[in-house]
Amino acid sequence: MSALNLRQLDTRSPDFDAEFARLRHWSADTDAAIEQRVADILADVQARGDAAVLEYTARFDGLSADSVAALELTRDELKAAFEAITPAQRDALQAAAARVRSYHERQLAASGQSWSYRDEDGTLLGQKVTPLDRVGIYVPGGKAAYPSSVLMNAIPAHVAGVGEIIMVVPTPKGEKNALVLAAAYVAGVTRAFTIGGAQAVAALAYGTATVPPVDKVTGPGNAYVASAKRRVFGQVGIDMIAGPSEILVLADGSTPADWVAMDLFSQAEHDELAQSILLCPDAGYIAQVRAAIDRLLPTMPREAVIRASLEGRGALIVTRDMDEACAISNRIAPEHLEVSSAEPHRWEPLLKHAGAIFLGAYTSESLGDYCAGPNHVLPTSGTARFSSPLGTYDFQKRSSLIEVSEAGAQVLGVIAAELAYGEGLQGHALAAEYRLKR
Amino acid sequence: MSALNLRQLDTRSPDFDAEFARLRHWSADTDAAIEQRVADILADVQARGDAAVLEYTARFDGLSADSVAALELTRDELKAAFEAITPAQRDALQAAAARVRSYHERQLAASGQSWSYRDEDGTLLGQKVTPLDRVGIYVPGGKAAYPSSVLMNAIPAHVAGVGEIIMVVPTPKGEKNALVLAAAYVAGVTRAFTIGGAQAVAALAYGTATVPPVDKVTGPGNAYVASAKRRVFGQVGIDMIAGPSEILVLADGSTPADWVAMDLFSQAEHDELAQSILLCPDAGYIAQVRAAIDRLLPTMPREAVIRASLEGRGALIVTRDMDEACAISNRIAPEHLEVSSAEPHRWEPLLKHAGAIFLGAYTSESLGDYCAGPNHVLPTSGTARFSSPLGTYDFQKRSSLIEVSEAGAQVLGVIAAELAYGEGLQGHALAAEYRLKR
Repeated sequence: MSALNLRQLDTRSPDFDAEFARLRHWSADTDAAIEQRVADILADVQARGDAAVLEYTARFDGLSADSVAALELTRDELKAAFEAITPAQRDALQAAAARVRSYHERQLAASGQSWSYRDEDGTLLGQKVTPLDRVGIYVPGGKAAYPSSVLMNAIPAHVAGVGEIIMVVPTPKGEKNALVLAAAYVAGVTRAFTIGGAQAVAALAYGTATVPPVDKVTGPGNAYVASAKRRVFGQVGIDMIAGPSEILVLADGSTPADWVAMDLFSQAEHDELAQSILLCPDAGYIAQVRAAIDRLLPTMPREAVIRASLEGRGALIVTRDMDEACAISNRIAPEHLEVSSAEPHRWEPLLKHAGAIFLGAYTSESLGDYCAGPNHVLPTSGTARFSSPLGTYDFQKRSSLIEVSEAGAQVLGVIAAELAYGEGLQGHALAAEYRLKR
Repeated sequence: MSALNLRQLDTRSPDFDAEFARLRHWSADTDAAIEQRVADILADVQARGDAAVLEYTARFDGLSADSVAALELTRDELKAAFEAITPAQRDALQAAAARVRSYHERQLAASGQSWSYRDEDGTLLGQKVTPLDRVGIYVPGGKAAYPSSVLMNAIPAHVAGVGEIIMVVPTPKGEKNALVLAAAYVAGVTRAFTIGGAQAVAALAYGTATVPPVDKVTGPGNAYVASAKRRVFGQVGIDMIAGPSEILVLADGSTPADWVAMDLFSQAEHDELAQSILLCPDAGYIAQVRAAIDRLLPTMPREAVIRASLEGRGALIVTRDMDEACAISNRIAPEHLEVSSAEPHRWEPLLKHAGAIFLGAYTSESLGDYCAGPNHVLPTSGTARFSSPLGTYDFQKRSSLIEVSEAGAQVLGVIAAELAYGEGLQGHALAAEYRLKR
């Protein structure tokens, strides 16, 4: 193959801002044809239920069945898959699940507890935090079938106390991925169906005779799944709609160049649209990383995908200093942010927007992807400016609690009535005034 | 006027489930003409910025200006509005703001703090919680101009530590609502513009030469605003898209019937699509409430709206017992839930889904709407099954923190590599294995 054409930018260049904007540009434009087909599929599943799900499964996945019940994976089948994988795989799945569970238990303890207090009038105020009753987890089939995604979606739901976790996973031509089934067994999935696409999202959102309706649908999927999730939002909750995956590495030159090169590859190998960017004030180090990339790329089984990703969307950026690198990182608000520095805690306070921050040379993104504990479902495309990793909080909801005492009603009633009359809402005012002692 | 035709259901009736389903039906169908106009407005504001905003403001609000800068309300103007309202209004606004602030400070302390821990290998895991940089708050103008909404949107953002809070409020024909401006002054709004509609949402989401781009847009609005928020979602965060407001009263018969009647009115007076439902096991008490409704309705300034709402979407429902009333409440997942009972804490644990729960006879919904402290922006249309009141958490985002120690990398690297090879992602595996000691 030809030499890799990986762009290099310099923040001191007068063209930097324009080049940087081009680099960051990514269009999430929707396809009108897909939108219409998804709308039709959703309406059909809502109207005809199981029969429609069976037809689409036969048509799109080449999988025929007499009933949706026949497409359900039994607990025994999940267990058998777990027992059929290698002992090393079993150990790895269980170890990863244990760490992910432990982290999310801490998360639940830190931010997912009910609380209340009474004010001086004896009025109780607070918030009750409760798990969702039932959620659906979409797991892609085919080439991007990731057992780690099963763990990362199901475990936070399980830890949050969700009553039922319904997994859907397409199995084109009936071919099942044993690691995905084993992960469902380990992660505490309640029921699982081998259905996928917009029809599976519709079945979860509306329910059918066989598939119970859920309160929220999470998990990644192709353009049909993303469109379907967008459309059922409101009927049910959804997690984010993910864009292409991204890594940003902030390097001070202290990490072996091969390590950083491989970290950039690990993002690029996902797909051609994935984005890998290195920011470093040391041009000499950037040259070392480039040399490592050129040397290592031909050894990678997914060389073609990595090459397309790096040439299409990757960049090595020379910055004036680490402070400027941090500022640029904040403009990007990356999904994955590696601080590959000897002083990661010096820079971390400057980093305001990122899905996950990986500190220090030993913290490769891939350790976080699988087993460090935090979730690997993270905000992409700059949405870390306003959104968060998937977590136990996504599987809980809050209800305000208010118990106004008789004494409190005397104080609050006067305030509420004044404001309600100001808004022209006499019913509100009178409801408050009825509670005043005459 | 004719006698009020308010439907009464009985859970013992064989038709109950069908009647209940009809009662709950509400279609959020979108209007294709509105959708297209909103799409055009968004594209135009994105392309032409201030010029487009000025044109739409002149066309839709009858308000002409030479520049968007001329539509900005200065801090002095907000202060002057605050000084021009009555002392009683000033006191009420400030008292309400103080209580709302205090509640949201508790909320921030309970669920909005960063946390981290180290495992036995010295690996650090945690989550950093940070405020959004800049948010936009949409405040409706015209007939539904509610100063309380300014407090309820701006104060949680302010308490969460948001850097800049940009308010937009349409002022048709230039007519400003002094209470809304005064509320903006009290609530800590940073900047305010008298623009509205889809053009204001577009200006906030994309930014113009004058209006700075925000990271999230919250606040209620009409169909154009709702459609615009849906469309800019992803570019920025949004809060929920609200449906009609609802109250459900669970009564055991111990609260004066007039109080409950007025509580039902206070929801019905919002608009014709608002929904007020009473659930009670005591048919005699329901008859008392009905008599109170008939007696009080002609005294209400907003009688016509209340009548349309109660006849169109209201209901009195006789249940077998309070337990059944709680179960039906969970099926509804109401926005506002009053437990008008002498034993509210007996029933509260049974109530799983609600935006806000008002406990006991003294806790009229209107006290919570204005000044008890909790937020009045609540999930509607059954979405309390999976979503929460607006809160400080809506103005923060989280970043996972991971710092794997050298010792930790030896353990995690083996697990991650095993799983990565299982997924066919060799780059991920090698990035983990590079951190293993050879």
